[in-house]
Amino acid sequence: MIVVIKPNTTAEQTKDVVDKITSMGYGVNVSQGAERLIIGVLGVREDKDMLAAQLRSFECVDRVVSISRSFKFVSREGTQAKTVVRVNGDVHIGDSAVHVIAGPCTVEGRDMLLDTARFVKSRGATMLRGGAYKPSTSPYSFQGMGKEGLQILAEARADCGLPIVTEVMDPRDVGLVSEFADVLQIGARNMQNFNLLKEVAKAHKPVMLKRGLSATVEEWLLAAEYIYAGGNHEVILCERGIRTFETATRNTLDLSAVPLLALLTHLPVIVDPSHGTGKWELVTPMACAAIAAGADGIMIEVHPRPADALKDGFESLNFEKYAKMMEAVRPIAAAMSRPIASDSRPAVQVTSG
Amino acid sequence: MIVVIKPNTTAEQTKDVVDKITSMGYGVNVSQGAERLIIGVLGVREDKDMLAAQLRSFECVDRVVSISRSFKFVSREGTQAKTVVRVNGDVHIGDSAVHVIAGPCTVEGRDMLLDTARFVKSRGATMLRGGAYKPSTSPYSFQGMGKEGLQILAEARADCGLPIVTEVMDPRDVGLVSEFADVLQIGARNMQNFNLLKEVAKAHKPVMLKRGLSATVEEWLLAAEYIYAGGNHEVILCERGIRTFETATRNTLDLSAVPLLALLTHLPVIVDPSHGTGKWELVTPMACAAIAAGADGIMIEVHPRPADALKDGFESLNFEKYAKMMEAVRPIAAAMSRPIASDSRPAVQVTSG
Amino acid sequence: MIVVIKPNTTAEQTKDVVDKITSMGYGVNVSQGAERLIIGVLGVREDKDMLAAQLRSFECVDRVVSISRSFKFVSREGTQAKTVVRVNGDVHIGDSAVHVIAGPCTVEGRDMLLDTARFVKSRGATMLRGGAYKPSTSPYSFQGMGKEGLQILAEARADCGLPIVTEVMDPRDVGLVSEFADVLQIGARNMQNFNLLKEVAKAHKPVMLKRGLSATVEEWLLAAEYIYAGGNHEVILCERGIRTFETATRNTLDLSAVPLLALLTHLPVIVDPSHGTGKWELVTPMACAAIAAGADGIMIEVHPRPADALKDGFESLNFEKYAKMMEAVRPIAAAMSRPIASDSRPAVQVTSG
Amino acid sequence: MIVVIKPNTTAEQTKDVVDKITSMGYGVNVSQGAERLIIGVLGVREDKDMLAAQLRSFECVDRVVSISRSFKFVSREGTQAKTVVRVNGDVHIGDSAVHVIAGPCTVEGRDMLLDTARFVKSRGATMLRGGAYKPSTSPYSFQGMGKEGLQILAEARADCGLPIVTEVMDPRDVGLVSEFADVLQIGARNMQNFNLLKEVAKAHKPVMLKRGLSATVEEWLLAAEYIYAGGNHEVILCERGIRTFETATRNTLDLSAVPLLALLTHLPVIVDPSHGTGKWELVTPMACAAIAAGADGIMIEVHPRPADALKDGFESLNFEKYAKMMEAVRPIAAAMSRPIASDSRPAVQVTSG
Repeated sequence: MIVVIKPNTTAEQTKDVVDKITSMGYGVNVSQGAERLIIGVLGVREDKDMLAAQLRSFECVDRVVSISRSFKFVSREGTQAKTVVRVNGDVHIGDSAVHVIAGPCTVEGRDMLLDTARFVKSRGATMLRGGAYKPSTSPYSFQGMGKEGLQILAEARADCGLPIVTEVMDPRDVGLVSEFADVLQIGARNMQNFNLLKEVAKAHKPVMLKRGLSATVEEWLLAAEYIYAGGNHEVILCERGIRTFETATRNTLDLSAVPLLALLTHLPVIVDPSHGTGKWELVTPMACAAIAAGADGIMIEVHPRPADALKDGFESLNFEKYAKMMEAVRPIAAAMSRPIASDSRPAVQVTSG
Repeated sequence: MIVVIKPNTTAEQTKDVVDKITSMGYGVNVSQGAERLIIGVLGVREDKDMLAAQLRSFECVDRVVSISRSFKFVSREGTQAKTVVRVNGDVHIGDSAVHVIAGPCTVEGRDMLLDTARFVKSRGATMLRGGAYKPSTSPYSFQGMGKEGLQILAEARADCGLPIVTEVMDPRDVGLVSEFADVLQIGARNMQNFNLLKEVAKAHKPVMLKRGLSATVEEWLLAAEYIYAGGNHEVILCERGIRTFETATRNTLDLSAVPLLALLTHLPVIVDPSHGTGKWELVTPMACAAIAAGADGIMIEVHPRPADALKDGFESLNFEKYAKMMEAVRPIAAAMSRPIASDSRPAVQVTSG
Repeated sequence: MIVVIKPNTTAEQTKDVVDKITSMGYGVNVSQGAERLIIGVLGVREDKDMLAAQLRSFECVDRVVSISRSFKFVSREGTQAKTVVRVNGDVHIGDSAVHVIAGPCTVEGRDMLLDTARFVKSRGATMLRGGAYKPSTSPYSFQGMGKEGLQILAEARADCGLPIVTEVMDPRDVGLVSEFADVLQIGARNMQNFNLLKEVAKAHKPVMLKRGLSATVEEWLLAAEYIYAGGNHEVILCERGIRTFETATRNTLDLSAVPLLALLTHLPVIVDPSHGTGKWELVTPMACAAIAAGADGIMIEVHPRPADALKDGFESLNFEKYAKMMEAVRPIAAAMSRPIASDSRPAVQVTSG
Repeated sequence: MIVVIKPNTTAEQTKDVVDKITSMGYGVNVSQGAERLIIGVLGVREDKDMLAAQLRSFECVDRVVSISRSFKFVSREGTQAKTVVRVNGDVHIGDSAVHVIAGPCTVEGRDMLLDTARFVKSRGATMLRGGAYKPSTSPYSFQGMGKEGLQILAEARADCGLPIVTEVMDPRDVGLVSEFADVLQIGARNMQNFNLLKEVAKAHKPVMLKRGLSATVEEWLLAAEYIYAGGNHEVILCERGIRTFETATRNTLDLSAVPLLALLTHLPVIVDPSHGTGKWELVTPMACAAIAAGADGIMIEVHPRPADALKDGFESLNFEKYAKMMEAVRPIAAAMSRPIASDSRPAVQVTSG
């Protein structure tokens, strides 16, 4: 940590800063530059962020610059090997394959979910998505089927063998959702719902952590750190677009986060081009781009009849379009020397077609 | 709702759109403009937002434009009179006075809170703020004293008579926090924690709803609508800055939201220039500006010794600076023909403890 | 154009609006919805944007919603075929190939430019980039070699045969730069320098128009419309990242703009991952992603020794890294069924000097 | 400048960094922290920014942190006294008074301008605004009357005595506009039109520099530095809103920039709530807020008949509303112990009413 002192500061004021630092057990390295006095804070302690905040309250302090990363466990520095999250015997997110997670935004009923699950499996999905609890900006919108939705998801899994990822929104629901889900999804609006993060940290299921709408990559990794430090090391990151001034797309999909995360963290990263763009026309090209950027997987909204979807039909692919998307992404994955996960496993017994 | 059809659309495709609309019980008004066919959707039903999303999935649909506001109860249109939230016998947020809510970011202990409460009361605060449960971006930062913090807050209220506003972060804590707090604060990161909103909607305490870091005014009002429609009509909005590209301030305080909200909603609005700027040097000028923009109150972080604060000392005023701020805002309030609330009540005898 | 009238508006106020519209020669279509009165404005005239602005000044007008696109010539609707910009006999941006434009940020001298030009040509570039006039945020930074830089660029073209793209910043320089350049680049900060746009519209050279840092796609297309409507139809769009709250990358590269533009315009689109990310580590993955998203080309900063570059060395590839990037993008282009342009031409004999 | 080295860096790699620094004539101060090696760069030279960029290209460099401000002349540190820009004998922007600059967005004709000039002068304006050259997002919008507009402005000045501020968009027009204008306005879209900045730096008229739509405060001050370092010290800054995700207002007026600039620079600052909000309903409250935040003046769009304005009528006040605004801002200025400039001068001979 570096403390930059304002010009025209008295020796007494500077001494107050130094005393503050040393009183908390840190060492100092004072260096007079040409234009500014700089104080290096030496030592590693849990309260370094607090000290930084306190030092910024001094009138003579111009800036406090952090040097170390604030995330530890999820940092690439600590663990050199990339994390592979083992969802079940077949699905290992972060391995050499590209995973396709597909399904409807929301579980709307038994038939639509089973139809979708069977179709996406027949065309290369290795995990089924579908919301039973749905966050909605408006209180007047559909908010999901709840427990019944979870039961339908479990039935689809039993039927076609795909593990399921589904959102949990409430710390009180973590136990229930964990009984049904293979992967617990934390939605973008809950990325900094810290009590929910602490609760899924205690669950015995992998967590897919979506990036918040206005979260920096650092904040996202700190949210992952909550889960990791809380005891759950099976964390998958999911880029789903950030909020910018551009209104032509629902969000701005930040694909540069994918290679950036590969530098910063050992956790696997998948991309959701459906929410990331909010336009079905853009889903396939951005799925291709995500894989080319190095994503470990893509998550795609698929609905039998988007024109009847209870939520987000405008960004959902119908079966035909989903099949075409799979044809488009396969050569891209191959160009990246990564198979589509369903192609790489010996045991892809097609259950429907 | 207006549906804009793409050029080069066939009559059959347009008919599909019209059929979709009428099949859901709405009427249509088809109008051929010079460049586009436009379909007006007539009727008011709960599922209008869903229909809009579905129509956007049609290939021939260029855009769907909403006409009505998506928030109803909190809209100015419905209730012409401004809402006054009665916190206790003396504190009526939204009345003719400007309210000053002050206190530390976080309850750090008994003495610091009582000292602060007494001081801010002696200098014109009408409500005490202080966090017992604190959201923290990093899992390694201080997260509040919890129930003990609530008890200290209650002690401070008993001591100096100021009602207290404190944050609730978890649906499971709403009952407990409601036992102690006079106003329940929903923090910025929880503005779209919908289950928490539903829970405070059932509480019998007013709610102060902070704007999310990347929330539009419309989304903010929809979050308020969750609380209002859920049965709790005592909602205070709190502007606290939005996230932008500017890094010289912690957030960008959007004061234009204050007069904009006065056009859109009947709910009272206060401003938090401490979080809004993240720099103690900017708190007083932005407190003045907030009042001049028409805010019903300001919320200010005050700490006996910011250099020792466990959180956010860099944006906290010490006692001397708080006293000076009060001297600065009083003439601005007077210029707006609004008294500072503590000056306007007959019974402000106690000046300090 | 749709005019939404506020509730509680008198018939007289509405009549004023209607009179305004008809007085300017437009027709009206008045429709009373369930919650709002809506006035459709019928007719197509040059002054429609002005009328929209005027109507928004009426107290009873809630909103004015445009229906038609504000750009005409560059819209996909007008011209169905995609534009191919013919830079020279070999380089046709927008054809079936992916073009690689490479070179230093800035021309720093004769030797470094010739070395770079020869190397990038030997590894598949089809155009040479390099700035002779450089915009700099600080007045104390290097601002380019000016005319001497242009002469060196011309020498490099003579030497290795690559056409050159270089920036023009000033309307007074358009003539001079046109004498040397094959493509005139308009930089991001000048995207709305309208007088410069009008000047390049009169030049007889293709224009590469970079997206402004905070430009929406619509504003970008309107800037292209300035050039197109002014008489120059050879316009190439270049996505180079937008400004967001994220500070881990220099900009946020908005790759979703690539497929979005394919829906909206017939102009070709290239992507600049160097400026778009500001980190050399991210250039190759984002170049791959750009091609997978459908870009017609990529523009890459290459410098013999980035550690000695006068500008932007942190986002420049050295020769070795550039060669590796080309190995990475080639299979992606193939997966998109597009050759790298230099591979598709019969006459690529010269490999390097 | 501080260079942070990545963990797991070899001594040889570090030596390369040190050699680079010393080879350019700087000293080094190497400090091994608990988690990172840090190299302080000692010395002040013109090429420090370039060195920073070069160091960021080293593979072993994690980050380079600037310590000094990149702007020098406009920094508060250099010149302690606040700059007062003397427009004419009466108008001294930056003195103890609050200045009101008013007038139409665009000069549309002789009568409308003279009427407006007379009215705003009669109600307390001390400068007249009006555009003769207008930047327009669309090529199909009105772009100003050009030289004829300048002549009308000069006639209005002769008639009512108000100095005029008007925009210059093109380096080629600086001479002509300087003949007519008292203050040269640089519009938001030209804040980083560096050649234009250099040209007005040579003019003998004060410059009002509007903040760019996506400009940080630091970039804005660097743009001011271009003008100042180029020889023109009469620079007024004008906050006019930044681009954010919020669409309910045209821009987000960043009033916190006003007190922030007071810390960073000695230049005077005015605020434009008309462009800053894009809604006439918000102009008066934000004008009040701007003054309360410490602005040296406000700039207000006034039009005799906004419903007939050729540009931006939706954010213009008519005469009646302008008169009311003046009644609203006067007590706020008084509360700030600053007179409205027109009230403070002995010689306010009203020329019209």
